[in-house]
Order: sequence, then structure tokens, then C-alpha cells
Amino acid sequence: MGSAVAQCPHGITSHSTGNLGQNKLGYSSRCSKFPCQLDFARFGLLHQGSSAASSSDHSTEFGRRINAVPDMDDMFWDKVPTPLLDMVENPIHLKNLSVQELKGLASEIRSELSCIMSEKPNSLKASLAVVELTIAIHHVFHAPVDKILWDVGEQTYAHKILTGRRALMRMMRQKNGLSGFTSRFESEYDSFGTGHGCNSVSAGLGMAIARDIKGKRDRVVTVISNATTLAGQVYEAMSNAGYLDSNMIVILNDSRRSLHPKIEQEPKTSITALSSTLIKIQSSKSFRKFREAAKGITKRIGRGMHELAAKFDEYARGMIGPQGSTLFEELGLYYIGPVDGHNLEDLICVLQQVSSLDSMGPVLIHVITEDNHQDAECNEKIESDNPQEGMITSSYDDSVSSSVQTRTYSDCLVDSLLMEAEKHKDIVLVHAGMEMEPSFQVLQETFADRFFDVGMAEQHAVTFSAGLSRGGLRPFCIIPSTFLQRAYDQVVHDVDRQKIPVRFVITSAGLVGNSGPVYCGAFDVTFMSCLPNMIVMAPSDEDELVDMVATAAQIDDRPVCFRYPRGAIVRTDHFMHPGIPLEIGKGRVLVEGKEVALLGYGAMVQNCLKAQALLSRLGIEVTVADARFCKPLDTELLTLLCENRKIYSGGQLYYPTATSKTGCLRNN
Amino acid sequence: MGSAVAQCPHGITSHSTGNLGQNKLGYSSRCSKFPCQLDFARFGLLHQGSSAASSSDHSTEFGRRINAVPDMDDMFWDKVPTPLLDMVENPIHLKNLSVQELKGLASEIRSELSCIMSEKPNSLKASLAVVELTIAIHHVFHAPVDKILWDVGEQTYAHKILTGRRALMRMMRQKNGLSGFTSRFESEYDSFGTGHGCNSVSAGLGMAIARDIKGKRDRVVTVISNATTLAGQVYEAMSNAGYLDSNMIVILNDSRRSLHPKIEQEPKTSITALSSTLIKIQSSKSFRKFREAAKGITKRIGRGMHELAAKFDEYARGMIGPQGSTLFEELGLYYIGPVDGHNLEDLICVLQQVSSLDSMGPVLIHVITEDNHQDAECNEKIESDNPQEGMITSSYDDSVSSSVQTRTYSDCLVDSLLMEAEKHKDIVLVHAGMEMEPSFQVLQETFADRFFDVGMAEQHAVTFSAGLSRGGLRPFCIIPSTFLQRAYDQVVHDVDRQKIPVRFVITSAGLVGNSGPVYCGAFDVTFMSCLPNMIVMAPSDEDELVDMVATAAQIDDRPVCFRYPRGAIVRTDHFMHPGIPLEIGKGRVLVEGKEVALLGYGAMVQNCLKAQALLSRLGIEVTVADARFCKPLDTELLTLLCENRKIYSGGQLYYPTATSKTGCLRNN
Repeated sequence: MGSAVAQCPHGITSHSTGNLGQNKLGYSSRCSKFPCQLDFARFGLLHQGSSAASSSDHSTEFGRRINAVPDMDDMFWDKVPTPLLDMVENPIHLKNLSVQELKGLASEIRSELSCIMSEKPNSLKASLAVVELTIAIHHVFHAPVDKILWDVGEQTYAHKILTGRRALMRMMRQKNGLSGFTSRFESEYDSFGTGHGCNSVSAGLGMAIARDIKGKRDRVVTVISNATTLAGQVYEAMSNAGYLDSNMIVILNDSRRSLHPKIEQEPKTSITALSSTLIKIQSSKSFRKFREAAKGITKRIGRGMHELAAKFDEYARGMIGPQGSTLFEELGLYYIGPVDGHNLEDLICVLQQVSSLDSMGPVLIHVITEDNHQDAECNEKIESDNPQEGMITSSYDDSVSSSVQTRTYSDCLVDSLLMEAEKHKDIVLVHAGMEMEPSFQVLQETFADRFFDVGMAEQHAVTFSAGLSRGGLRPFCIIPSTFLQRAYDQVVHDVDRQKIPVRFVITSAGLVGNSGPVYCGAFDVTFMSCLPNMIVMAPSDEDELVDMVATAAQIDDRPVCFRYPRGAIVRTDHFMHPGIPLEIGKGRVLVEGKEVALLGYGAMVQNCLKAQALLSRLGIEVTVADARFCKPLDTELLTLLCENRKIYSGGQLYYPTATSKTGCLRNN
Repeated sequence: MGSAVAQCPHGITSHSTGNLGQNKLGYSSRCSKFPCQLDFARFGLLHQGSSAASSSDHSTEFGRRINAVPDMDDMFWDKVPTPLLDMVENPIHLKNLSVQELKGLASEIRSELSCIMSEKPNSLKASLAVVELTIAIHHVFHAPVDKILWDVGEQTYAHKILTGRRALMRMMRQKNGLSGFTSRFESEYDSFGTGHGCNSVSAGLGMAIARDIKGKRDRVVTVISNATTLAGQVYEAMSNAGYLDSNMIVILNDSRRSLHPKIEQEPKTSITALSSTLIKIQSSKSFRKFREAAKGITKRIGRGMHELAAKFDEYARGMIGPQGSTLFEELGLYYIGPVDGHNLEDLICVLQQVSSLDSMGPVLIHVITEDNHQDAECNEKIESDNPQEGMITSSYDDSVSSSVQTRTYSDCLVDSLLMEAEKHKDIVLVHAGMEMEPSFQVLQETFADRFFDVGMAEQHAVTFSAGLSRGGLRPFCIIPSTFLQRAYDQVVHDVDRQKIPVRFVITSAGLVGNSGPVYCGAFDVTFMSCLPNMIVMAPSDEDELVDMVATAAQIDDRPVCFRYPRGAIVRTDHFMHPGIPLEIGKGRVLVEGKEVALLGYGAMVQNCLKAQALLSRLGIEVTVADARFCKPLDTELLTLLCENRKIYSGGQLYYPTATSKTGCLRNN
């Protein structure tokens, strides 16, 4: 592989010109040793996204974002000096830094991240944990020629800072700002978009195979996390990687952060039984050449890490088995580790040795990181900001901090489920998805042995719920809309086709604010309504939600689902009434008017009511109806609405004939 | 656990009355030692499906099937005597049989299966492999109180014979006949319906947890297969089982049948790298009480199996690791094995010891079975019937045998892809799904290093394709419609949202004949058309298919999909022309007529043409149009069709007005 430092192959480095060269806060862009081909200072930021290498539509999109960037002076008003970081405009600038300088750089990135992310303590922790790892990766590998892939959005923040997006960091997850995830539309350094937390090994393997077919020699590095190891896809991918035997490097960033904070105290195996055994060190069975090199690596990282290895278990069953190989070795990956994820020397040493070898096949490097590994002053600040630790709550950070007093639909769901559980003692709850909303912690505590959070194992969650139902219980399966997509086949075959009563609670349905398209739950109405046995409904407000929980609890001969949006409920003075089961397949008329009819479903009903209020001021009489059920559809209500009224649907007004009984309308 | 033998708790045994008691072929129902509560002989078969324990709708459905059963004399015209099997009308009748008698029973079931399944050699092999295992399970456990779950349809045939469905076996996968899978609507002995090959551990765990919550003590046994271990869901389920630590027994039926017949000769790790290491014997780390018992088990099964264990690998990396634990142990299951799956003594011994222990947590019993383990005379017959071995082609058996001379859509796809590969040297093919159609073997051979069959890892297949595309290749991702459901989230986030050009070939779309609802591909048009970037099309015949392959190959800025049905192409004298890319989003008019317009999509266009032919004889002039694209929809064509014609849609005729431009019609 050619040296990226000498060749500067990307054509995207910049040097200091204009007022960014040295600003009043100690910013400096002293990169005169790197030849400049594009002057990004003109754009007002240090940016590589719109280089010649990226396609035109990407640069256009990113160009729009650039225009929205605030003045640099406004962005770093309380920053400590970061002389090393100021020199780094893209990863090439890391190449000639000494380990001591890289350590200093890590400290500066920590400091900067702590300032930027101070309002999102959990995101901050996840991002701080991988600072050294990110630096080591970009020091050793040559992005964007080498492909770096990530599974978790928060872990890419240091990567974003080092790849030309530093100035935009405060605009993250804001309109026209940076995505909270990697995105191929944002930077050529983002080889693949972060998806639902477990796609990087599959995508990386595809790139590795493509590279082999094309006869290239670039490296593919994917960084996965603990949570990833809960998801089935990563096993499929690793097993296939083991089979295809293509060169790629999988780095397991093991933050030792379990899905359940209390799990460490319990004698049970951790929820990812895997996690608890990750600390073992295994021998290998193949890759002789690589093994020789591995000896060197092992010798180097060995000190201090031995105690992490679990003790030899003498309680063998009288049979001589083979020397142990971990789950990863079983899947066909060569295992190296564990490596201290905050020791830059070790990290660089391991990565350099791995990167220097040809024909090694897939390798898994097990890196142990700590969320709490951070500078002392930052530490205090974070601790005081965030008394509750250890939960993965990334995308719910904002709703938590901004809506402490606001009741959400999820809060209502919780109260309603607690009420229903009084009536139906056989209610059990299954939760799946990338993370759990804080509201559901009450359920977890109250239901204790009847609440099952399985994390990123949505496929399992759905079939598991079906099993619970077949075992005679009354399961509610709570999954965000976007993650229910991952279990669609299980919904079809293990629930709907077998007509098993499972009650799906589809949370975060529709648009999800600053969590953006990755968590957008746009498709559930479509993909659930086409199933033959499923009852599909959506509440228009919190009272309807409570009634729908009661309805779902009562239905015991077929599956049912209901969706609700993320965020606050409609009324601020909501009084919780006991839920009353609704008549299946029947909507209701909320406001009677003679001229126009508006038919809403779910949260849209509130918009219909607002429109009705506006129109009534203009003297137009509007009927507003709440469909309640998308399936079965209330065709009688539809017929009623069609009679002698204009119907608003899909942006057009239709004038039905008086004789219309089927909902098919004459266009006037 | 109470003894089912003494209590006969199911209320569903029958004894011999009427002409079934002893028929001319040696059939006998000498079960007088078991008290009879229902006389099923009156129904003309030995059947337990409609017992009091099953719900009324099930018995009704099954009642219809019973009426369709042919006369017993017609069904076993060339049978060898089966005196032991004739005694077994349900699993209770196995309880008092000696091991010697059970061996005889196994031989009789083999003989019966060989006769019944002689036309489906591959299905036969899979079903013969588990005869002893099935007998051992039903001998030791007390179904239907104990729950037995299966992952693979073919492996349930012996189970079906032993659970009252013997007389219906020849009606399998026929109208009103038995399902090829387990089905809770068919028998109370089928605790859960076989789905897409990996649901049993999840469902079983749900039942185990439900049992614990309800304070019951029944056993849950799930039988998984090699192919299952390719699917991510089973890892999610096993990991969760390890965490929840509920008692359940997972039996891995390891037939050593790899997805790729040639894999054994290759130095590469097997596609399920797992499979190749399954033969190792591991130590355990927990379950002290159970470990003691396990010693006894191990001692018993140890003989002859030691050589299966891989040798101790001395090439350790200078660090002392823990004693090895397999993938399953890592996931939290207690591993026992390998056990010879054709040795009834060993199987019964292991299952009895496992079933007799409380508080053991989840256990995995690794059973080695052989497809070719069968009676000598049967063996010869099968070998001569089936020169090509080792492929998993269950659901394609029929199409293969019945359509040797018939060209299928898949054949056309293959030829078309081969032609496109001449033009586009960067085409790569990814295949996923439970099994591969025989047609695609040509692709596998021709493309060699550019064809990737990943089996039941659809999630990985889709993201892997996206990675290949990002790596600069031109991937076609071939997945049956029903299995594409399992990768829906990956289609949404790893392909469509990132606008990555992956070309989805959706095979077996729509109804799939005798493969039934489990393989039905009904939903793909719906769930693909709602995605923002996806181009969705369907060919109306083989020429259109060829053009759509060319269209898909050419599209390089967004994802595209097309679906085609299982089975024969339209024309018998089809000449393969080179594909010509279609204009995106444009349909075509096939027949011009003034009065009525029929708009078809995909295979339905042929039905429209047939209807047009019929109507033209009645003097009705019909326009037939082929939509070609479901998305983007050809609204111009729609408008054209609406003008001055009756439109047939959804079973109703509509008369548009002359001014209609939007496709919204006046109902007359």
C-alpha cells in the first residue's frame, strides 16, 4: 500500500490562509508541510467533504450545509487551547506525529468533545471512549483510500473531528448541520452510512471482496460495539467473513457497558453472554504466518492484561477438548486481544502489525475501552451533570433533557400498561430496539420478571413474544417503528400467519426530530396493514392511546398493533382514565360540518382539528373524523363522509356524487 | 413431571374399532392397554388433531382435510409389514417399548418414509436422518404437554407419522392435505409453526419463560439444523436463552450437509465456519449439579466419538487462556455432545438425563446424523433415483421433477445475467434464502468467484451487496420474495436510504404452489414500493424479464428491484434476445380497444390478455396495458387509459368522465 503521507493522494488538504490561520482562541492551521490543492478556508471551515473525489450531488448537498455554518468566533467561545488539533485538518496530518504528540492530540480531542457534548453526557461518554482508538486507526490506516466503517453514531465524533468536520460539530443533529451518524453524503471519509447498529461487518466484507476482485490493496476496518454483538446480522456477517477469508479487520470496541446497568452484580450470565467471556484469550488454529506476527503482538500487549483472562477451568468433563477458541474463532475470525483501548502505543503497534500483513484473512481485534476514561476536570463536570450512568440513551438524550416536565406518549403507555396489568395478570412485556426510552424504566422495575429487554435482537423479540403467547401469556411487544423493520419476517410468519395474539406497540412512529432518517419510522403503517390477520390502529391522542392499550389487551385471537409518535402528548392537563376497549374497525366523528370532511389517522388527526379551526374562522364548515383503525377500515364511516361533502385527501379536493357508496369519487 | 403413560393426559388416544383394526396389509391398532376417550376410527384415520385440547377453529379446518382423505386401501398398496408402527397411534404408545422395539420401529418408519417420499429424494434424506432422534424425543418427552419445536419442514415427517398423521402422509403438500411444515392448526403436537428455518429457539424460549411464570414444569425441546446456524436470529435467541437461563433443550441436528457440496474438499473454512468446529468437545464453566450428571453422560457416549474431537492445538501464543468453550457455551448454553444421532441407546440416555434434571438452564445437545443412514434396499433405490446428492432443494423438488423440460423464469434470468455479464464485467451475484433453485447452479459455476450464496443470512446478503456496490462493483442480489422480508430493514437503511445501486432480483414472487403459505411471497410489491429511492418493476413475460435485467444492470445511481413468479415462462418456443434497457417509469399498451381498459402488472398481465381474448369473442373491445413499473408509476399511461373507457380495478368497473386527468373516477 502506498504511503498516503508522501503522495497525498486525496487532493483535499488545505493550508492556512485568511483569518482562520490563527484566530484569537489559539486556532492555528500550520500545515505548510502539506501541499494544498483546494483552499477550503474560503468556505469558512476546514472541510474535505466536497473534494473532487466525492460525487457532485454530495458536494451540492454539503454545500448547502456549509452556508449555514455560523462564524467560527461564535463557536469556540470557551475553548481551551488545542494547538495539536488545530494542525490536523484531515487524517494525513496524523501520520508524522509522534506517539507523545498523538497522546496530546487525544487529550485535546477529549477536551473539545467534552465542551461540545456537555449537554449530552451519555453521547459524550460513548464518544470519549474511542478517542485513542480513532486516532490510532487514522494514524495507521490511510482513509479515505482505506475504508473505515462504524456501527454506532456516537463513536464517530472523534472521527468526524479528524476528518474535516471539526467546525461543524456544534451543529450536529440540527437543521442543515452534521448527521449524528456517518453518512456517505457528508464525507468521503464515511465509507458507509451507520445504519441500525450492526451493518458495518457486512458492508465492510462487501468492500473487501470488491477490492479483491478489482485487484486493489486497500484495507477495510470496521469498528463494532458491545451492543452490536446482540444483533443476529453481525453473526451472519462474521460467519460469512470467516468463510470468504478475505482480508479485513474487525475491531470490537468493548466498553463493558451492558444493556442492563445492574447486570454486573448479578450471578447470571450477562445479557450478551458473549460480553462476559470476551475477556478470554484464545489460541488459534490457522494462519501460520500471521501467528508468528501475532506472537510479537501478544508479547507487547501482554503486560497487565493477563489478569483479564479468565482462569483455566479445571472442571473438565474427563474428555480432552481442543484448546479453546472463542466465538469469533469459531466463526472463522482470527482473534487478537484484549488490547487496552486507551493505550495508544499498544493500539498503534497492534494495528500496524495487522495492517502490514498480507493474506491474513479476517481478524478481530478486541479492544477494551472505558466510558469513564477522561480528563479529571471533565470527569467532575460530567458526573455532576449526569447522576444516572450506564444507560445507552443516545437518541433519547434530547427528549430527556428538553422535556423533563413534559408527559410523552410513552409515559401514558407505561401508566396504561400498569393499569391493564391489574386486570390481566398474564401480561408480559418484551422490548427490543437499539436503546430503551427512559420512560420504560418504570416498566422494567415494576414488572421485574415479566419485562424482557432484548436490545438489538428484534427478530428474536418478535418470535419470543409469539412463544410467550403460545405459552398462555399476554405479551406486548414494544419496538420502535424503525427497528420493527428488522423483524418484519418474524411478524409475518411467526405471528400473523399463525394468527398468534401478540400486541405490537410501535413507538417513535413517523418522523423523529433530530434523530433524523436513521431512526425515522415511516413505513410501519404500510408493511403492517398488508398482513392478513393483523389489526392495525393508531391513537389520535393520549386518551385514545389508553383505550387502544385496553383494546389490545382484550384481543386474544389475533395479532394487533398500534403506533404512536415520539414526543409530548396533546393535552398538558391530562388526567389518566381507565382504558375502555374500542369497537374493532370503527372510527369516530370528532367535529360535524357540512361542506368538507377531513379524515385523519393517528397523530394527523390533531392537524385535521387545527385545519378545521382555521377553516371555521373562514366560515367553512368542516367535519373531522378519526379513522382509529387502518385495518379493518371503517368503510361505513368513509361512505358517510363521502356523502355530500368535499373530501380532502392527498392534497386534492374531491366532490363526491350523492349516490357514491364506495368511496370512489367524481373529480370535478 | 407426571408420567404421561400412566395418566394419558391428552384425551386423544384411540383404540381399534371398525375396519381399521386389522386391514389386509397387516395394519393393526392393538392399543387396548390405553383407555380410549375418542374413537377416531370413525373418522377414517388415526388422528389426534381435533382433540378437545385444540381450539374449535383448528378442528374445523382439519375436519375439512379429513373428508378429503382417500381410502386407506388406496394408500398403502405396496407396503411392507409394519407391525410396530401399526401399534403407534400417538407418542404415548412409545413409552413402554424396549430399545430393541424402538429400533424396529425406526426401521419401519424408514421403510414407510422411503415408500411415501420416493419421488422426493432430497426431502427423504432429510427426513430419514432424524428418525431415531424423533423416536428418542417422543419416547423420553411427553408431547403435547412437553413442547417439541422444529426448524425444518422435512425433518418433521417422522414426527408427523408418530403423532397421528400417518394416514395423511401421502397427501402432503397437496390440496386439503398435510402441510409440509409443522402447523399449530394441524395438530396439537405441533407447538409452533415451522417458519423460515430459525424460529424454534426464540419461540421455545418464549414457551419456557411462560411455563416458568405460570409455575408449570413441562419441557421445551427445539430441534435446529446446520442451516439454522447460518441465520442471525438463532444467535440472538441463544444469547438471550443464555441470559434468561430458563430450562430448555436445544438439539442441533448436525447432518454435516454443507450449503456447498464441494466445500469439504476445499481448504477453506466451511461457509458456516461453525459447522466445521462443531465436532469439538468442550468443557463447561457452570451448572455444577448438572456437570456431575454430564460426566455420566459423557462417559456413556464417549466411546468412538473421541476421534471427532479436534486435537489440542499446542501453538498457543505464549498466553494461558481458559479451557475452550464453544460458540454455544459462549452464548450461555450448556453443551453436550457430539452424540451419534442414529444410536437410540445413546440418544435416549442423554435425553433422559437431561430431562430428569431441574435447574439446568438451557442445554445444547449436539447430534450428528447422516443423510445416507438408511436401510440397504432403500439406499440403492434412492441412489439410482438421485445421482446428484447433497444439495438442499426441498421446496424446489417438485418443480425439478415435474418440469425437467420446461423453461422457467429463473432459467431466463440466468441466461440474461450471463449476457449482461458480457457487457458489464463488474457484475457480481449474491444469493440468499433457505435454499437455492437448481437453475442458479449455472451461475454458481460460471461466475465462480463472483457468485456468493450466503444461505439463510438474508440480512447480511443485502448489506454485503451494498458493500460490494460501494466497492465499485455491480451487484445483483437474488432473494426469494418471502425471504427478502427477513432483510427489510437492511433494504431500507443500508441500500435505499443511502441510495446505493443494488439490483434486487425477487424470485418466487406471489403464490408458490404446493410450497404453501410458508414460502408465499405476497408482500414485496407493497414493502418495496413505499421506499423513496427504489425503482420497482415486474416483467409480464420472459422477454420483459430479459429487458428488465438489462435495465437493472444499467441503473447505477439508485437501487432497483424486479419480481417474477416461480414456474414456467409464457412461451414454449422462446428465443433469447439480447436485453434492451427500458425507459424508467413507462408502461406500454399491448392491445388497443375502445370500451374497457385492463391494466396489469407483472404476471397479471397474462391474465389481462386472457380476459381480453375472452371479451373480444363477446364483441367487447378491450385495451390491455402493462404497467411495467409500480414505482415510478406511469401516470400518463393511467390518464390515457382513463379517457373514455371503463376501468377495471379491484373487482369493480368504473366509468371515468371525459375531463378526468387525475385517475380519480366517477362511480356509475
